[in-house]
Amino acid sequence: MLDSRIINALREVVGKDNVTTDKADLLCYSYDATQQKFMPEVVVHPSTSEQISRIMKLANAEKIPVFPRGAGSGFTGGSLPTGGGMVVTTERMDHILEIDQDNLVAVVEPGVVTEQFQKEVEKVGLFYPPDPASLKFSTLGGNVAECAGGPRCVKYGVTKDYILGLEIVTPTGDIITTGGSTMKGVVGLDLTKLMCGSEGTLGIITKIVIKLLPLPEAKKTMLVLFDSIDGAAQAVSTIVRNKIIPATLEFMDGRTIDCVRQATDLQVPEGARAVLIIEVDGDREFLDKQAQRIAEIIKPLGVVETRIAETPAESEALWQIRRSVSASLRKVNPDKFNEDICVPRSKLPDMIRKIDQIADRHGVPIVNFGHAGDGNIHVNIMIDKKIPGELEKAERAIEEVFKGALELGGTMSGEHGVGIAKAAYIPLELTEETAAYMKKIKKALDPNNILNPGKIFLDN
Amino acid sequence: MLDSRIINALREVVGKDNVTTDKADLLCYSYDATQQKFMPEVVVHPSTSEQISRIMKLANAEKIPVFPRGAGSGFTGGSLPTGGGMVVTTERMDHILEIDQDNLVAVVEPGVVTEQFQKEVEKVGLFYPPDPASLKFSTLGGNVAECAGGPRCVKYGVTKDYILGLEIVTPTGDIITTGGSTMKGVVGLDLTKLMCGSEGTLGIITKIVIKLLPLPEAKKTMLVLFDSIDGAAQAVSTIVRNKIIPATLEFMDGRTIDCVRQATDLQVPEGARAVLIIEVDGDREFLDKQAQRIAEIIKPLGVVETRIAETPAESEALWQIRRSVSASLRKVNPDKFNEDICVPRSKLPDMIRKIDQIADRHGVPIVNFGHAGDGNIHVNIMIDKKIPGELEKAERAIEEVFKGALELGGTMSGEHGVGIAKAAYIPLELTEETAAYMKKIKKALDPNNILNPGKIFLDN
Repeated sequence: MLDSRIINALREVVGKDNVTTDKADLLCYSYDATQQKFMPEVVVHPSTSEQISRIMKLANAEKIPVFPRGAGSGFTGGSLPTGGGMVVTTERMDHILEIDQDNLVAVVEPGVVTEQFQKEVEKVGLFYPPDPASLKFSTLGGNVAECAGGPRCVKYGVTKDYILGLEIVTPTGDIITTGGSTMKGVVGLDLTKLMCGSEGTLGIITKIVIKLLPLPEAKKTMLVLFDSIDGAAQAVSTIVRNKIIPATLEFMDGRTIDCVRQATDLQVPEGARAVLIIEVDGDREFLDKQAQRIAEIIKPLGVVETRIAETPAESEALWQIRRSVSASLRKVNPDKFNEDICVPRSKLPDMIRKIDQIADRHGVPIVNFGHAGDGNIHVNIMIDKKIPGELEKAERAIEEVFKGALELGGTMSGEHGVGIAKAAYIPLELTEETAAYMKKIKKALDPNNILNPGKIFLDN
Repeated sequence: MLDSRIINALREVVGKDNVTTDKADLLCYSYDATQQKFMPEVVVHPSTSEQISRIMKLANAEKIPVFPRGAGSGFTGGSLPTGGGMVVTTERMDHILEIDQDNLVAVVEPGVVTEQFQKEVEKVGLFYPPDPASLKFSTLGGNVAECAGGPRCVKYGVTKDYILGLEIVTPTGDIITTGGSTMKGVVGLDLTKLMCGSEGTLGIITKIVIKLLPLPEAKKTMLVLFDSIDGAAQAVSTIVRNKIIPATLEFMDGRTIDCVRQATDLQVPEGARAVLIIEVDGDREFLDKQAQRIAEIIKPLGVVETRIAETPAESEALWQIRRSVSASLRKVNPDKFNEDICVPRSKLPDMIRKIDQIADRHGVPIVNFGHAGDGNIHVNIMIDKKIPGELEKAERAIEEVFKGALELGGTMSGEHGVGIAKAAYIPLELTEETAAYMKKIKKALDPNNILNPGKIFLDN
């Protein structure tokens, strides 16, 4: 428990009602989607960057670790208060400050929920593509800090590609702006992109300038069932090799189909062992042509059935299948380790084969689905922790999955980040020299190691 | 002149023939497109990253400044050896190592010339969009270091948006890789984007992993003449407000038209005071519809004439007009200060009015053309340095142009960078705190201030 002098100082900064030390309240800020728990000593609810600046200066003076937090929906523990100290939540900073239709730019506070923002811009015919699965509750500040992805990234890129500028509070408490609201800008180092995906270790995001696109006129969704995972994986390569980049190119393996079949009323013909959900978007007339072309070129790859949605309701029904995956997995086993390796997309068949071998070798069920279009697979290792030895098996399997992805020229994480969950595996992916280069940056910017210490292996 | 001991050590690293101290040779590496001259003491031609690593270690041990250089085509002096010392040129590292058609990824050495690379990938139906005006001679390494732009960036983004990973030699001589060849990756800090546009101050780029796109099926070019610059500027906003993002959206003001008319056989009707060159690309059938739609919505804005190219030759003829601009400017006055401010595109009319007022106030001709679609204007202040007082007038005008752009929410540089040319103006754009954050990064990574000292104001 922090000294009452410090609590009082925090109250002076943000007001009495915006500082919490009540245990029940602290508990709410002690976990994220990793289901790990670390109790903070205090939770602070600032509503301006000036308040955050004063908080950071106090934290530096008193050497109290600070853990910035959006919605706490991260999968790797980026927002967990691993060192006690202070959680600074941006949930009160939830205003959309501007949607500029002439320049296709929006300015928001970090606490705005992603889906809410998407709906607002879509009302005026604009489009914010990044669509992490958590979009109903995750915040844009968290999305930027983690560089969130999602199905549409195969065509549209990740969060980083839409961030033009930021206001941040530095680890030592300065308020700075990076980038701006122009489409181009090369004055000084690109701190904006450096902040994206830095997982709250280099600054607290207090304002975000976002680039928008015109909303595509229409979209067309198709669900294709294959007789083998190999066929589906080859279809991904084939589509791209034919110079078509669909808006989404999602896949599910046979085990995922089994789970979904149990959980929903999905009718799947016998012999379907993999699914691709393909969505194309753009000019209405163009879409039919593109969907037909896709159906044609993938036909020889073991297609069992192709369903093309003709109405928005039919499209929604197809997506419902994809969305039901996460919940339905629990039917396999109660505990899930959700990894998100990414490989060059042509290596997808190799990666899936490797994962199958790993699952067999360790006797743990592994369920694969995800963003096949950009080679980003969600590898779900399903165990029951209560059974002795299962956790160790899962851990060995995870390490082998990471090594397998790296052998194929891939990465341990396409969109979830490192946080605390993958920090131990970092030496598999980054050389000591590369890690040292990153650590030097952290140390230079956060000499007291106040901001999110213990994350992404950047400890001073 | 460097000690012969050091010259010998360099010869040992790269071989006798790859170290130059001959004055005539040094002269070739003393200038860039700024037409300023700084003599290096030695020029080194490495061909591997290992050699560059050894060079950097030697430079640190001996405290010799190192100036990496691509083609020396930069407009702000980024490659100029301002502090004597060593020019390290990457011109021998000019191999395209891989074009991976399955994954739409290429790997190149930094010395590959941009246009040559574009032609190679286009042969297999792929597309590398960034198209700086210097593309016939500038190198990809230089493009990454400066984050080069070009006309197509309005739709496709800048160089940074296509760089997935890098191999770099750090200022202290380590060889590190950043990013990778996957479409997504969030392990550790994003050093790849940090390097893009860092103007050779944080590392020497030795390998580049590039994301490619499918080559658009077709394109359609139109040239539209307006009776006022205001009409043309409004047309830009109108097109974007109608949710159309053309591949290019270039403009020229009345003075530019006058120059081009003198230099080429361009036939322009009386009363045409501004030009837009608009190119749309994509599916063939879709293009006609889009071009017609554009013509329709901009018609009320004072359009004098619209020319739509029906063949590639006609398209080429329209582009030839745009390309002849730079050379034809010299007709106005012998000395050119080429700035590249960028404003939110809706502020284009305001910015042009400001520039006209500045030109009138100081009695210097200012010729404007450039990438209207993303608000990036090339502001060319044309003087004759030999006339006393002209240079001072130009300098005052430049500062006012920068201030004007910043007042409108813009930036001093959309694509040329800071280098030495704009370093003095940095306090206009960046606060002391933002600058300090950048300087801390430089100091942490280059403690001896060896790599490109004196650039982008990052002096230790």
